[in-house]
Amino acid sequence: MTYRAPISDMLLALNHGAGLEAAVKAGHYGDFDVDIASAVLEEAGRFATDVLAPLNRTGDEHGIKLEGSSVITAPGWPDAYKRWTAAGWNAVSGPEDFGGQGLPLAINAACTEIWSASNISFGLCPLLTLSAIEALDAHGSEELKKIYLEKLVSGDWPGTMQLTEPQAGSDVGALRSRAERAGDGSYRIKGSKIFITYGDHDMSDNIVHFVLARLPDAPAGTKGISLFLIPKFMVNADGSLGERNDIYVSGIEHKLGMHAAPTCTMTMGDHGGAIGYLIGEENRGMQCMFTMMNQARLAVGLQGVGIADRAYQQALAFAQERRQGRAIGKPGNESDPIIVHPDVKRMLMQMRAMTAASRTICYATAVALDVSMRAKDAKVRTAAAARAALLTPIAKAFSTDLGNEATSIGVQIHGGMGFIEETGAAQHYRDARITQIYEGTNGIQSIDLVTRKLAANGGESVWALLDELKGIVKQVETSNDPAFGTTGAKLRDALASLERTSRWLLEHVTSAPNEALAGATPYLRQFGATLGGCMLANEALAARGIGDADPQRYVMLARFFAENITVQAPSLEKTVMDSAEAVNGADAVLLG
Amino acid sequence: MTYRAPISDMLLALNHGAGLEAAVKAGHYGDFDVDIASAVLEEAGRFATDVLAPLNRTGDEHGIKLEGSSVITAPGWPDAYKRWTAAGWNAVSGPEDFGGQGLPLAINAACTEIWSASNISFGLCPLLTLSAIEALDAHGSEELKKIYLEKLVSGDWPGTMQLTEPQAGSDVGALRSRAERAGDGSYRIKGSKIFITYGDHDMSDNIVHFVLARLPDAPAGTKGISLFLIPKFMVNADGSLGERNDIYVSGIEHKLGMHAAPTCTMTMGDHGGAIGYLIGEENRGMQCMFTMMNQARLAVGLQGVGIADRAYQQALAFAQERRQGRAIGKPGNESDPIIVHPDVKRMLMQMRAMTAASRTICYATAVALDVSMRAKDAKVRTAAAARAALLTPIAKAFSTDLGNEATSIGVQIHGGMGFIEETGAAQHYRDARITQIYEGTNGIQSIDLVTRKLAANGGESVWALLDELKGIVKQVETSNDPAFGTTGAKLRDALASLERTSRWLLEHVTSAPNEALAGATPYLRQFGATLGGCMLANEALAARGIGDADPQRYVMLARFFAENITVQAPSLEKTVMDSAEAVNGADAVLLG
Repeated sequence: MTYRAPISDMLLALNHGAGLEAAVKAGHYGDFDVDIASAVLEEAGRFATDVLAPLNRTGDEHGIKLEGSSVITAPGWPDAYKRWTAAGWNAVSGPEDFGGQGLPLAINAACTEIWSASNISFGLCPLLTLSAIEALDAHGSEELKKIYLEKLVSGDWPGTMQLTEPQAGSDVGALRSRAERAGDGSYRIKGSKIFITYGDHDMSDNIVHFVLARLPDAPAGTKGISLFLIPKFMVNADGSLGERNDIYVSGIEHKLGMHAAPTCTMTMGDHGGAIGYLIGEENRGMQCMFTMMNQARLAVGLQGVGIADRAYQQALAFAQERRQGRAIGKPGNESDPIIVHPDVKRMLMQMRAMTAASRTICYATAVALDVSMRAKDAKVRTAAAARAALLTPIAKAFSTDLGNEATSIGVQIHGGMGFIEETGAAQHYRDARITQIYEGTNGIQSIDLVTRKLAANGGESVWALLDELKGIVKQVETSNDPAFGTTGAKLRDALASLERTSRWLLEHVTSAPNEALAGATPYLRQFGATLGGCMLANEALAARGIGDADPQRYVMLARFFAENITVQAPSLEKTVMDSAEAVNGADAVLLG
Repeated sequence: MTYRAPISDMLLALNHGAGLEAAVKAGHYGDFDVDIASAVLEEAGRFATDVLAPLNRTGDEHGIKLEGSSVITAPGWPDAYKRWTAAGWNAVSGPEDFGGQGLPLAINAACTEIWSASNISFGLCPLLTLSAIEALDAHGSEELKKIYLEKLVSGDWPGTMQLTEPQAGSDVGALRSRAERAGDGSYRIKGSKIFITYGDHDMSDNIVHFVLARLPDAPAGTKGISLFLIPKFMVNADGSLGERNDIYVSGIEHKLGMHAAPTCTMTMGDHGGAIGYLIGEENRGMQCMFTMMNQARLAVGLQGVGIADRAYQQALAFAQERRQGRAIGKPGNESDPIIVHPDVKRMLMQMRAMTAASRTICYATAVALDVSMRAKDAKVRTAAAARAALLTPIAKAFSTDLGNEATSIGVQIHGGMGFIEETGAAQHYRDARITQIYEGTNGIQSIDLVTRKLAANGGESVWALLDELKGIVKQVETSNDPAFGTTGAKLRDALASLERTSRWLLEHVTSAPNEALAGATPYLRQFGATLGGCMLANEALAARGIGDADPQRYVMLARFFAENITVQAPSLEKTVMDSAEAVNGADAVLLG
């Protein structure tokens, strides 16, 4: 089963749901022309269908192999990566000074969805490279940029991000890898790292590792961490590759999913120490990481969107083919495709609506990031940065939660066949599972939402967003379109509920932090359910406005989301406010 | 990570939540003594911990192999099976006339949870045997019973159930395997079957297959299906094994989970036809299947309970070991076990509460089945049968839905380690996934609940149950125990909501069946959330009444369930009533 990028849905989400068109019209994107989006997405979709999608199953079946101290990827993968970089796909939003195309992050976000949908393990490699580019571009010396940035932007040399150690996962400050000053401005790094995505592979001549380590005189915790660039192969003055550096893969993990993407244990210092170069200032490595965090988390959210869509497309095709039972009231004995059954329709709509809502939330995050960097007006930039900061944990956690739910429904629609690996539905289910964990677990996203994003400026970012969403609800109600069903009422209730919950959490986050934290996860769900419902309604209104051939399908989709997912918001409010006591009294139950 | 049966929780659920003690006191169980339960469960728990739990991971890693036409199970499995049957565990609730211990199904239900928790792939084999015993005992000739029943009851010869064919999954009536009368009272069966659990293996000398097939002159559909007993090896007059019968495994599936449990393609008739014996009457095979359905579906629900508890125990141990971050307000730099974090407490409570609620629902179903067969008073038996029929789809679908959710949370609590196969959390996640699919998909359970169980006698079974549940709520409210928090209010709202939804569905199920069917899945969820909340509250009240050492932990657990899961019931009511239009109008979206 292949994958086709749903271009018209994506463009509606990008231009209207996420507000790209309005931001362009407002002048925040300079001379960028929105018409370019459809051309880029069409082309990306074609590449994904032709080259990446067929390798998804191959990669899962072959997995990767550790031969000596080298990782060998699945057949066809190195070639596909070379074709992908040669076509310029790694450079879509890269800095123009270093060979990038300088397109908006919003365009690259849509592309990221496409790579993730067609082949999530493949698409993971460039995500790490993008973080590396961001870190180097923002914090690296001109000398380092000159040597490495163009190669990273083209993707010829992919990047890795190396934070995790056995005792230091979510708690990055606990890491122990050591860096010593070599006296020539470079450093020698020793230590080991675990869970390093694409830590080694055979898809490129060189790899540029970005590694967190501690100087001997560094303070404890996160304030004593520095970021280093460590090339796999040293680079000679003429740009050719030199000696092998002292950083090696020493093990690979046997994982639930993403079998084609190597997850490596890395060892530095068996031969005297890996030669590394400081990025930013000594002991300021965490600040560099924060720079990248929004984009990296958004990218994982987009993986959730992509895998959901892939699972949906496969389940839809199956439901149109597989015959079991008959539609109610239909005469004769001939069996019908299972899509005639209301329960199957419900499952497909659930997948489709979840995908559409999380897509728009992610794209809107990308637009906010773009505007925060591109707008001429500093006030506009600041407001957009706050919006991006607020949306990021929701984009990451809500989209990956829904992505996982969608892949599970995809399995369910296949019935017994869904449990058989060759069907492929199970692979999406396995692959998706890591997205709720890495780049900050979804629990950590929820905590970030409550303690940082909501709490910033007395909740100002939240109130500003709620005001906008209320405007959408008004439009739904004044549209007087009966096809919206109870959408308006559901959204209105949800917004009022979200406002009450936000105020309650704001009050408690300082006075009774454990009570606020106990409700973080249901709050993020409530936020996503409300936001997603409003955004889909907004898209439906836009589809009517722009003369879509059949705007009512977007109305129906928005309605389904509101009546099935947004409708849970008031229950979640009660969970946040009422259940903190049971959560914080849990020890009596758990340890009793 | 091993497994220990939570005996005190299980006994509270069995005796008080599920009402075993009251039913015994009422005389429905003859001279059965409830004290026997704890002795049996202690012993079962010991066997599970010592023998079965350690083989769970072994089985997943080794899987099974097809060598020639024989399936080879994982190392240690045949020996464990022999020890398990020798200890009498297959015979717990078997008929005493054929070597069974004749204990209540409720006791066997608790044992089934234990086998499923310790080793779900292992525990699956006897579930099929139990169905075979039921079919043979209820519908088989005395001659067949004499030859096969004792061997099935002891487990020396396990059974299989062979329904599915490529074109006949949920739609059993579409099957094509053919049976011809041999003239000597036996039949010759030809055809092939797929997805046959434990269709072949090396854990026993013989296997007794139960196969659905069609006679040449049979009517179309489900009214033309007959059930046959087909031994793997023929049985001589003296009980020794004779010739190999013409039924062979011809392939095994590569599955997402349950790697140790063979899922076989079976071929009959390559050598003239498998010799089979009719069970029940010709063309009445579906009636025989219906006999078994309640128990088989309940058993799968118990797999959901078991796997949830296994995942919970593993996650709890991890959360007490793994150190990341610090509790809020705690001085110093030393990191704490992650169980101090409210979000982790929430996840563990969610798993624990889901397990407890689905456990009690399943046990209550077993008690109802027992009473429907054992009570002296015919009216009591009829009412209990109606209760069992009503609870069965909820026990199956709600418990396996929650079981899957619990295993996913189990992965999440492990963070990155959860995605690594050797941790074991991912295995539970993979293994659990089939329970929502087999023995009637959870969608089919929902449809059964709405169209058969709710609709029976104008909803009488539902109203009777709601009346009982209202009594529990009253007790919660009159207890005036502040530790219940908002439990009483949540349960009261949920019951009122469930009653409204039930009435709405009753009205629509005949007048607008597609609208009723569109809401089947959210209705079952609403039912389970409400029922589970009431049952846990009832258990908490009982724990106070029987002088439990710390009854407040059961109060806290009931409260958590009510405030986190039952609280969703009114939202689900809206989904059922409001979203039918969007579901039935889905084609415009899905096919547009």
